[in-house]
Amino acid sequence: MPQLRLLPRRAWAALLSQLLRPPCASSPGAVHCHSQGTRDLSPQQIVVREKILDLVVSCFKRHGAKGLDTPAFELKEVLTEKYGEVSGLIYDLKDQGGELLSLRYDLTVPFARYLAMNKVKRMKRYHVGKVWRRESPTMVQGRYREFCQCDFDIAGQFDPMIPDAECLKIMCEILSGLQLGDFLIKVNDRRIMDGMFAVCGVPESKFRAVGSSIDKLDKMSWKDVRHEMVAKKGLAPEVADQIGDYVQCHGGVTLVEQMFQDPRLSQNKQALEGLEDLKLLFEYLTLFGISEKISFDLSLARGLDYYTGVIYEAILLQSPAQAGEEHLSVGSVAAGGRYDRLVGMFDPKGHSVPCVGLSIGVERIFSIVEQRMKTLGERVRTTETQVFVATPQKNFLQERLKLIAELWDAGIKAEMLYKNNPKLLTQLHYCENMGIPLVVIIGEQELKEGVIKLRSVASREEVAIKRENLVAEVQKRLSKS
Amino acid sequence: MPQLRLLPRRAWAALLSQLLRPPCASSPGAVHCHSQGTRDLSPQQIVVREKILDLVVSCFKRHGAKGLDTPAFELKEVLTEKYGEVSGLIYDLKDQGGELLSLRYDLTVPFARYLAMNKVKRMKRYHVGKVWRRESPTMVQGRYREFCQCDFDIAGQFDPMIPDAECLKIMCEILSGLQLGDFLIKVNDRRIMDGMFAVCGVPESKFRAVGSSIDKLDKMSWKDVRHEMVAKKGLAPEVADQIGDYVQCHGGVTLVEQMFQDPRLSQNKQALEGLEDLKLLFEYLTLFGISEKISFDLSLARGLDYYTGVIYEAILLQSPAQAGEEHLSVGSVAAGGRYDRLVGMFDPKGHSVPCVGLSIGVERIFSIVEQRMKTLGERVRTTETQVFVATPQKNFLQERLKLIAELWDAGIKAEMLYKNNPKLLTQLHYCENMGIPLVVIIGEQELKEGVIKLRSVASREEVAIKRENLVAEVQKRLSKS
Repeated sequence: MPQLRLLPRRAWAALLSQLLRPPCASSPGAVHCHSQGTRDLSPQQIVVREKILDLVVSCFKRHGAKGLDTPAFELKEVLTEKYGEVSGLIYDLKDQGGELLSLRYDLTVPFARYLAMNKVKRMKRYHVGKVWRRESPTMVQGRYREFCQCDFDIAGQFDPMIPDAECLKIMCEILSGLQLGDFLIKVNDRRIMDGMFAVCGVPESKFRAVGSSIDKLDKMSWKDVRHEMVAKKGLAPEVADQIGDYVQCHGGVTLVEQMFQDPRLSQNKQALEGLEDLKLLFEYLTLFGISEKISFDLSLARGLDYYTGVIYEAILLQSPAQAGEEHLSVGSVAAGGRYDRLVGMFDPKGHSVPCVGLSIGVERIFSIVEQRMKTLGERVRTTETQVFVATPQKNFLQERLKLIAELWDAGIKAEMLYKNNPKLLTQLHYCENMGIPLVVIIGEQELKEGVIKLRSVASREEVAIKRENLVAEVQKRLSKS
Repeated sequence: MPQLRLLPRRAWAALLSQLLRPPCASSPGAVHCHSQGTRDLSPQQIVVREKILDLVVSCFKRHGAKGLDTPAFELKEVLTEKYGEVSGLIYDLKDQGGELLSLRYDLTVPFARYLAMNKVKRMKRYHVGKVWRRESPTMVQGRYREFCQCDFDIAGQFDPMIPDAECLKIMCEILSGLQLGDFLIKVNDRRIMDGMFAVCGVPESKFRAVGSSIDKLDKMSWKDVRHEMVAKKGLAPEVADQIGDYVQCHGGVTLVEQMFQDPRLSQNKQALEGLEDLKLLFEYLTLFGISEKISFDLSLARGLDYYTGVIYEAILLQSPAQAGEEHLSVGSVAAGGRYDRLVGMFDPKGHSVPCVGLSIGVERIFSIVEQRMKTLGERVRTTETQVFVATPQKNFLQERLKLIAELWDAGIKAEMLYKNNPKLLTQLHYCENMGIPLVVIIGEQELKEGVIKLRSVASREEVAIKRENLVAEVQKRLSKS
């Protein structure tokens, strides 16, 4: 499986393998979170983010996805009644005249709106973009009020479970590629969950509310979730207990078989449809060679209202070797599911387009990588500069400007100091600090002889080359390194 | 000068050269603008945008810039009193509790806030991101209420005009690289403009307001601008007329020399400082080989309040060959300037960091390219899929799934139809429509013989290869094409 496309494989592997070593003690560095719950990304963070995004996007493209972009804000009505309980977390814009607007909460609803608005019946698209949620920022978990999502979705009427299996394959490829350690993808189906609620005696009007409680099982104990269901959602205690029996179940395809035999669940038409699909899904996942990464988990609920079929969520498993590490709970790092009725909510005639998709929680992945980098004191280059133009003498600004323009025009990444007469030592120190490998030196002697000195920063070796061969010589050296 | 880094040079050149051919008649297609003044970018638009952004960002990296990212919204107070007259165009968020927030209006003010907040004294950074302005959307000019900006800025105390000259060099490299035709960069200096206002008799309190009027000279006639200055800004008519004489002046370095001799302007200390700097700037631009692209233009004002020194703005010049083309007025495609006091506005002690930078108006550049593509009916590939997995027979889904997983795991971009039993013709048509070059075919015969057929979509040639050599053979063929 390719772990990298746009970056030197070794550099990336070295970076990540170091990040994944058990870190030394000491608490992670301060996180610069603004009072409004957002943060700036520093150049070092940008480098890490770009590496992660490159890997994610190249996986999406490997699976034939097209790019799409939608605006940061939508008409408020577009986002209304799509998300369920979490709708209160949507940012609204101030009414300054014109339509009422809200910042997007995810990339899925805008995608569905796009499909309906443009009458697109079939599309495989990816979208990398920011979304905004008014949550209390919990920085340790890598949650901010502004964060980046990477979505891949397949819209269209197809034969069952083929696109769904591809979504899970993509999640596996990305999580393996990122080398974040072992992971597991929990799978369930909204129809199995609803069937379970029905046979346990939950009134249909409470399905989504009870589902929202179940969704908190990764953060809260069963006892607390049960309390919420009974005290806040008004469920009878014996109904809650029956649910409690089911949500403890998780396993592979054998659990699917087992649930077919469940005397109560097997009486529910919806649940049976869900189980049939899961069985088929596991068949395809086996052909893809990823079935051992997937766990059928009856406790998986996914908080959002719009899911209608299979749902899934990937979590990282902490290996025993990392047990000594300061615990970093990151929740799910990727998730998604099938939403067959969302597009229809935007179509005047209610015509829908079945969809299935996934979202990579890159922000949480950044948090893990970032925190480990901080703990390790790891540094990454934040620029790509290849050549530095220096002089040991005064009054060589003009020559330096001519030289550097020549390098730029040849596509070579070059810098110089913005000083009329910088000291040579200052210039060489800059190269060492910034990790620039090559220095071009021009001085009186060189000008007289029509040459340029080329200096390797690492070895401190210097050679004189003819002035007119500058670009060719620099390119030759850069292609070797 | 490199025109391309991440894309096949020929493909890009072919695309743009076609785009730049005089188009046939017919009006441009409908622009899909939402009622809120924003738009979605379709997959085809994304491809064009990515090519443009790749070129821009690789130029920024060539000049040693680091990446930075700031949030979409800032505290409202951060944006207050930074922009002048246009402040009314800022989007505010609704007060839902917590701080008052506004969507960023540009990338410059957040950069200055970042520098002050983190006490950064020196930084060369680029930032590609969206900004939001509540303007009346004028789609023909490529103006939307949400648009993308690409900024490059140099912060720090340096010797005069060296970073400023580099900013102009960067603008030239990008505009040449994009092959949008001939262009011109107008240059002026806020100190020369203020000096001009002073010697013409404008009261100092009206400098910025009169500057805003002057800024409209690219969209309005002098007559209308004069009327605005007199009727709305309360300028005496004879003062306006004196300004009128100056703002007609534009030219090269000789105009700078001429202005040194101007009996009135040469009496103004500020103006003299600006002229000294422009003289030095032209010297450096000559060394960079770009002075013929630059015009000293006394009518250039730039609308934003925060500029303090040199300002510039690039415009495209329509060549006579394209005169028959439907006129597409795009205004400036890149602009920027020096803002030495903005960072100090965010520092508790008022300590500032001198800055100079530029912004590429990629949105307007997209508009030009898009409109020409529509007129030409040009199509671009919206996916990068290399191989399609097909079958001529029924019941080959399992084999197709195994094959495609093998290709994905080898990093090959592959697709198949999400059907149990698709028709071969449908599959081959899909490849032709999507521009997929290679097809892998598996059927009964192939399965029996342990082979796979490889079909070239262009030549329709088919060869049988051993099943176990699949990945190696596909990679060999892809590397050749």
